[in-house]
Parts: sequence; structure tokens; C-alpha cells
Amino acid sequence: MGLFMNEMKLFMEPESVVVIGTPRLTGPGSFNILENLVNTDFPGRVYPVNPNADEILGMKCYPSVLDIPDDIDLAIISTGRSVVPRIVRECTQRGIKALIIVGQGFADGDEEGKELQSEIVRIAREGGARILGPNTFGIANAFNNFTSAYIELEMKKHPIGIIAQTGFFFVGLPKFTIVGKGIDLGNACDIDFADGLGYFEDDPQIKLILLHMEGTKDGRRFMEVAGRVAKKKPIVALKTGKGDEGARAAQSHSGSLVGRDEVYNAAFRQCGVIRVDDVDEFDDLCKAFLRLPLMKGRGIGVITITGAGGIIALDTCQKYNIHLAKLSPETLSRIGALAPPWQTLENPADIWPAMMIAGHPFDEVFNTTLEALLTDPNIHGLIIIFAAFSPQGPMFPMGDIFQITDKFEKPVVCWLYGTEVDGVASMMEQEGRMVVYPTLDRAVRALSRLNDYYRIIDNEGET
Amino acid sequence: MGLFMNEMKLFMEPESVVVIGTPRLTGPGSFNILENLVNTDFPGRVYPVNPNADEILGMKCYPSVLDIPDDIDLAIISTGRSVVPRIVRECTQRGIKALIIVGQGFADGDEEGKELQSEIVRIAREGGARILGPNTFGIANAFNNFTSAYIELEMKKHPIGIIAQTGFFFVGLPKFTIVGKGIDLGNACDIDFADGLGYFEDDPQIKLILLHMEGTKDGRRFMEVAGRVAKKKPIVALKTGKGDEGARAAQSHSGSLVGRDEVYNAAFRQCGVIRVDDVDEFDDLCKAFLRLPLMKGRGIGVITITGAGGIIALDTCQKYNIHLAKLSPETLSRIGALAPPWQTLENPADIWPAMMIAGHPFDEVFNTTLEALLTDPNIHGLIIIFAAFSPQGPMFPMGDIFQITDKFEKPVVCWLYGTEVDGVASMMEQEGRMVVYPTLDRAVRALSRLNDYYRIIDNEGET
Repeated sequence: MGLFMNEMKLFMEPESVVVIGTPRLTGPGSFNILENLVNTDFPGRVYPVNPNADEILGMKCYPSVLDIPDDIDLAIISTGRSVVPRIVRECTQRGIKALIIVGQGFADGDEEGKELQSEIVRIAREGGARILGPNTFGIANAFNNFTSAYIELEMKKHPIGIIAQTGFFFVGLPKFTIVGKGIDLGNACDIDFADGLGYFEDDPQIKLILLHMEGTKDGRRFMEVAGRVAKKKPIVALKTGKGDEGARAAQSHSGSLVGRDEVYNAAFRQCGVIRVDDVDEFDDLCKAFLRLPLMKGRGIGVITITGAGGIIALDTCQKYNIHLAKLSPETLSRIGALAPPWQTLENPADIWPAMMIAGHPFDEVFNTTLEALLTDPNIHGLIIIFAAFSPQGPMFPMGDIFQITDKFEKPVVCWLYGTEVDGVASMMEQEGRMVVYPTLDRAVRALSRLNDYYRIIDNEGET
Repeated sequence: MGLFMNEMKLFMEPESVVVIGTPRLTGPGSFNILENLVNTDFPGRVYPVNPNADEILGMKCYPSVLDIPDDIDLAIISTGRSVVPRIVRECTQRGIKALIIVGQGFADGDEEGKELQSEIVRIAREGGARILGPNTFGIANAFNNFTSAYIELEMKKHPIGIIAQTGFFFVGLPKFTIVGKGIDLGNACDIDFADGLGYFEDDPQIKLILLHMEGTKDGRRFMEVAGRVAKKKPIVALKTGKGDEGARAAQSHSGSLVGRDEVYNAAFRQCGVIRVDDVDEFDDLCKAFLRLPLMKGRGIGVITITGAGGIIALDTCQKYNIHLAKLSPETLSRIGALAPPWQTLENPADIWPAMMIAGHPFDEVFNTTLEALLTDPNIHGLIIIFAAFSPQGPMFPMGDIFQITDKFEKPVVCWLYGTEVDGVASMMEQEGRMVVYPTLDRAVRALSRLNDYYRIIDNEGET
């Protein structure tokens, strides 16, 4: 493990980098890795290599890596595939221990590409070097302004590490975030998921690990390392290439060996990796795990201003094996004090009649219900179903909400509907410890995962 | 049917309305139906009734409906439950044939409420009147500026009619739209789904019908009417209250009789109603059915700039019983002319290597692939997976795209990823006949429904 860690540090936090195959062209459409490194304010030493240029972006250009006089931590190799074996050999001759091979056309291509990939692995092994790739963006690390990607990335110091088989996720998850540290394994000819997990294991800058996996060649090592790391921080995996067709495509995309989907399900479950359904769940769980407390049981409460929404919540809970907790007598009496006499009090707690029929002010009804439900020992998490009619409507006693929710170590999530959802959602998330989900399904799913992880780190947990 | 139509016209397009139980209070938080009607510029006659006021909002106020001298199409009754039977009787005495009962605490409440509901149904039947509600927002009709809702609605003349058991949807679907015409059945003590469907059946202003159903009391009539209407325009249903718990809650929310979920599945299938999974699918299908051609087969094509995205697309297609079409020899030779020699050409068509490795301009690669795939007789719809790095980046030849897609009667949808998704998505949807979906899952699902409906109206269609 110590060895992995040091090797991975060369990839993640290099102090000196050579970019082999730096194009002379710069600007949009040039896919110039050197230019991206410069724009990112990478603080280390950078050496461009291009036999046909003396200078690129004002930096002295070397004809070959063999001509560089200084020590080098990492080589980024971005050339046509045919010359890669020679360059790998030159890098090992120069004592470089970490190689990122960017180009395509290896195991992701034809038979010749597969052979080339085997050859470079052999050369690197002999020379004591490790390879990330080929067919990769390589690394993105917002914490030391380093990236080997050939497109410009917006990097932010989020405590999220991702290990993927594509540069796709470096560009940003659909709505939420840019990863703090990213490792694109590409074809994963050498550096694999276990290596990345080993690096993130004790990394104090990373609190959550995402995996995008098409397949892995060394399942045993993956399970050993993942099982250990999952006890320390959540590991959330998107496994793609599910069906036979998908598996074949994954084989052609990254040359991955993919197994039956059920095998992956069982393996993830055994080592405590949370498998997600889709790309959006990455977003959802980044918010959930970084902003909310874990959920200690599978019984939840729902506060709703629409009876119809409460029923939709029930349907969704069933889907994710979450149940609506039976309200305690104390809770019932606290919320019953405000309800019209004819109302059947239950969970979901429909607060509309207490306001509309019994005529109590919205704040009073909402805050009483919120505090009563969060106090209830049967309730381990809460969903609020709210309307967003206007960004600062009188129905939104936000300050009060957070004063109450902060008193409890229970996750509170919100589903908004109406025409002002986006504005109100970001306002709420900025003001307090709450996550607003775009659908009820995603809200319930996130709560469910917060309990899944609670059970992973606490084997005594309620099941 | 003719009768339904005329009766429903009194609810949907009244020329004269009495609002019984108009509060003297106006402004935010007053839930004043009269004020909403005035703000909406309802062009018909409006009569407020309140025995304790002479004038509300500058309008003459009547002590009772019996005191109004003129003919009245529709009464909106918004009073405490105990006086509702008397008011219903007075309305029938005045010859009013359409009654909206707004208040709660009937079959949605306790035993007394259930009895009250039976009583008002009996009184209305005897008096030849129809009831919408109780426990309802009533009607929203953007086409004649009419609403009986007690909260302010943003109404737009969308060609979408919704029949729901909640006012929830009147406020707007989560992201997309305000319904053009809405009927909130509430407890559905009399007016039911079949009545609403009968009204929308030949309504030239409505091209798509949405149903939010907790249950229906007259399944046979529903199936008869829905089966007929579904051949004329798509009917899309969200059936909630699925499990036992959900069914019990629906019973308490609107007093609906709910049956086993599988029974509804079979019934919807039989009469050609498209059942959706969640609220968001309302949004998705509004866009799909109003903006895209139907899909004539279940084979689709995918164009992607990310191999990983292509694999995710494959996984998703499998889920919705859509398949990736085998590309014809002609298609393969057209896209093969631009690809690097080592690339395995297939569907999803990964266009990145043709640009990045073979060095062809993005426009040329993209447009060639788009036209080739849309020409392929095995492909009936298309998904484009694109990155949105910058709102007007050079990778976005939008004008060309729409020139090509417009030549084919095949639906084209798009999934964008990256940091600029929202801006680029709305730009694309404004510029051409394309729908951008926030997730691949929703994109594939929408295409799948476009073929479902094709098969509903064309029994000879491919299955």
C-alpha cells in the first residue's frame, strides 16, 4: 500500500512534468495539454517535447525526453500510437516512474492496438514504471492545479475523488460539481481502481470517492482495497456495460474485461461499495454525503402541503425499501393540536388543512410539525414537500427551519414544485443544512443511501 | 357524450360565475377566489356572495345565491363544510347546473364528512346539477382566463389538458409548463375522469391529455371513453397510491376507491393510455409529444462524443426495451470514410476518434454521421450525446443540425453534459425541432413512449 501511495503521488501531485507530443498549435481546438497546464497555474516544472519546435508558449522545447537535463516525476505521452513503445522506453531510460498515455487506438482499437498495449506494459514493467491509460484524460487535481487533460477543465477544491474509465466526469457532473481529484483509467492497462482507492484512502482532502467502472481486471485486489477504504469514507460506484450489448461495447471502448452484472452487484455489496443507478445519482450523493448526517434507520417522516404529493412519496419509499414511520402518541398530539377535528393524522403529515381550514399561521403549523416529527424516535430522516411559487414568498420561514433542523442529527431533504424551484432551491441550500432534490424519487433514494452507508460502517445498525 | 360535453362546458367555459363564501379579506394569504378571477381578467360576469359584506373588491356582494337576479352558469362554493348541503340546495333552486365545491373535510375527512358528501351528491342529483370536488382547486382554463383556484396561478395557452385529483399540477409541472386547461377532480364525488376526457376529446385547443389518478369509481366508463379518446390524442397517466400503504393514503386524501396496481396497468394498456413512472415524465412527454414526430420502430441510433456515454446509453435502452439498430453497410461506409482505420464502427457511433485522431473538422464529422444515421432505414429515432462546455463553443454547429434533422420524420433528442447544460439546452430547443433531456434515462424513456403511442394509433405498427 505504501508503495502504491508513493507511485500514485507521482501521478497526482507531480513536481515536474514532461509533455511529449506537445502540439505547436495553441488556442481553441488545439487540444494542447501544455497550454492547459499553463492556464491552470500548475506550480511545478513543465518540459515540452516536440522535435519540430524550439519553443512553445514561450517555453524551451526539447527534441526528446532524453535531452531534458533535470529529474522528472511524470511523463504525459500524447503522440500517435506507433511511436509510443519507443517513447515509453526512453522515459524508463530517463528513470521516469509515472507515465500517462493519452492517445487512442490501443486495446480500444484493433488487434494491432491490443499488441501495442501489451508491448508498452511490458516495457514499462521492465523499466520499473507505471502506466495510466492509454485512451485517457489522465489526472485532474484541483488541490495542486494539475491536469493532464487536453481540454480545458474548470477545477474546484471539492473533497471528492473520482476514478473513472473516461474523461467525461472531469468536465463536471451534470448539474452539481467538478471533481476535486480525478483519475481517468482509460483502458486501465496497468493503474487500476485499487491503485486509485489506495491513494484516496488516507487523503485528508477527499471525503467521498466516486467510481465509474466498465470493468476491472483484478477483482480480488479491488475487493480487498475497496472493503478497507469503504469503512473510512463512502465509495459510490456507477457500473456501466450491464447487458450483453453493453458489455461488448465496454470491451471495445476501453478493452475492459466485464463480467456478469450480478457478480458486480454481489461484489459491491460484500465490500460495502454503494452502487448507484445513474449518472445523476453521483450528483445526488455528493450533496447527501457532504452536507447531511447519515440516517440511522429506515423509518422516515414526510411533511407535505399537498396530500397528492404525500401519496407519491409513499409510492417512492416502497421502491427504495424505506418506510413511513408510525407517529408516536406524543407526535400525534403535538400536530393534532393544530389540525381540524376531522383530519386523520398520519405520516405523511399533510399540513394544509391546519392552515387552510383551521386557520393557523403557516409558520406555526410548519415549525410545530417539523419539530414534532424530528423529535419522534421512530423517524430517522425527513422529507419536506413544499411549493415554490415565488422566490421569497411568505410561505417560506427559512430561518426557522434551519434553527430546528440543526438541533437534530437527522438528514432533512426537500422536494419543491412550482415555477420558482431553481431559485428557491439554491437559496435553501445556501442558507442551511438541507439538500433540495429535483424529484421525490431522487430525494428518497438519497436518504436510502444515507442509511445504506450507516449500515456499512456500523454492522450493528438496524437492517 | 354530447351531454357531458355541454355540462363540462359550464365548468370549463362559464359565462357567469357566483363565488359563494367570498372572504372580505384580499391580498396575499387571503386565498380569495374572487380576487384571482379578477386578476386573471376573466371576461364573464362574476357575483360574490357573502352575507356579511355589501361590497368586495368594488363588486356588489349578495347575501345569498337566491338574491342574484341573473342567470348563472357555475357556482364556486367555498365555505365550511356544514353549510354546503344548504348551499347546494339553494344553487339547484336557482337552476345552476354546475357546482365546484372547494372545501375539505368530506370523504377526505371523518365519517361525518363522508355522510355530508353523500348528502350533497343526492341533493345535486335531485336538482339536476353536477358537482366537481369537493376538496378541489376546481378549474383552470388559460384559453378563457378562468380559474376557480384560491391561489394565484400562472396560466398559459399550452395545448395540454390535465385531469387530476389535486391542485398540485395547476401550479406548474416541476420544470416545464403550466397546463392550458386543468380539471381538479378532488374527491371526485360526481364529475370523474371520463367526464373530463369527454370534454377534451374533440377540443381543438388540446393536443395532449395528462391524468393524475389516485383511483376511479367507474372503471368501465373510464375505459370506454379513454379507449376512444386515446386514438385521437395521447393520454398520459400518472397513477399514484401503488402499494397497500399508498392506497390507504389515497383513500384518506381524496376518498378514492383504489384497486390493485396491476389492474390499472392492464386497464391502461388495454385502452391505450400511456402510464408514466413519475411526475417528471409529464414534463418529458409534454415536450416529446408536442415537439417531436412519433417514432415508428424501436431501433434507434446514438451519436456520442464519449465512448463511456455510449455505453450508458446502451444500458438505458435495454431498460426501456429499445434497441440500438444495426447500421446498414451504406451507413458504415459513410461514417467509416472519416474514422481512423483502427476504429470499430458501430452504434453508438463514437465520433471523437474521427476528430481527435483522424483530424477531421468537428462539423464535418458530426453532420456526416447525423445524416448517415437518420438515413439508415433501421434507425427510427436518434439520441445525441454532446458536451456543453461553453454556451456558444465551436463544437456546436446548431444551424446545420436542424437543417439535417428537419429532413427526416424521426425524433431526435439530446443529452448534454458539462457545466453549461441549461443555457445550451434552452438555446437548442428554441432553435429547432429537438428536445434536450436532463438525463439519458429520460431521453430514452421519452423515445420509447413516442413509439408506444405510434403503436396505439397504428395497430399494424412494429412491436
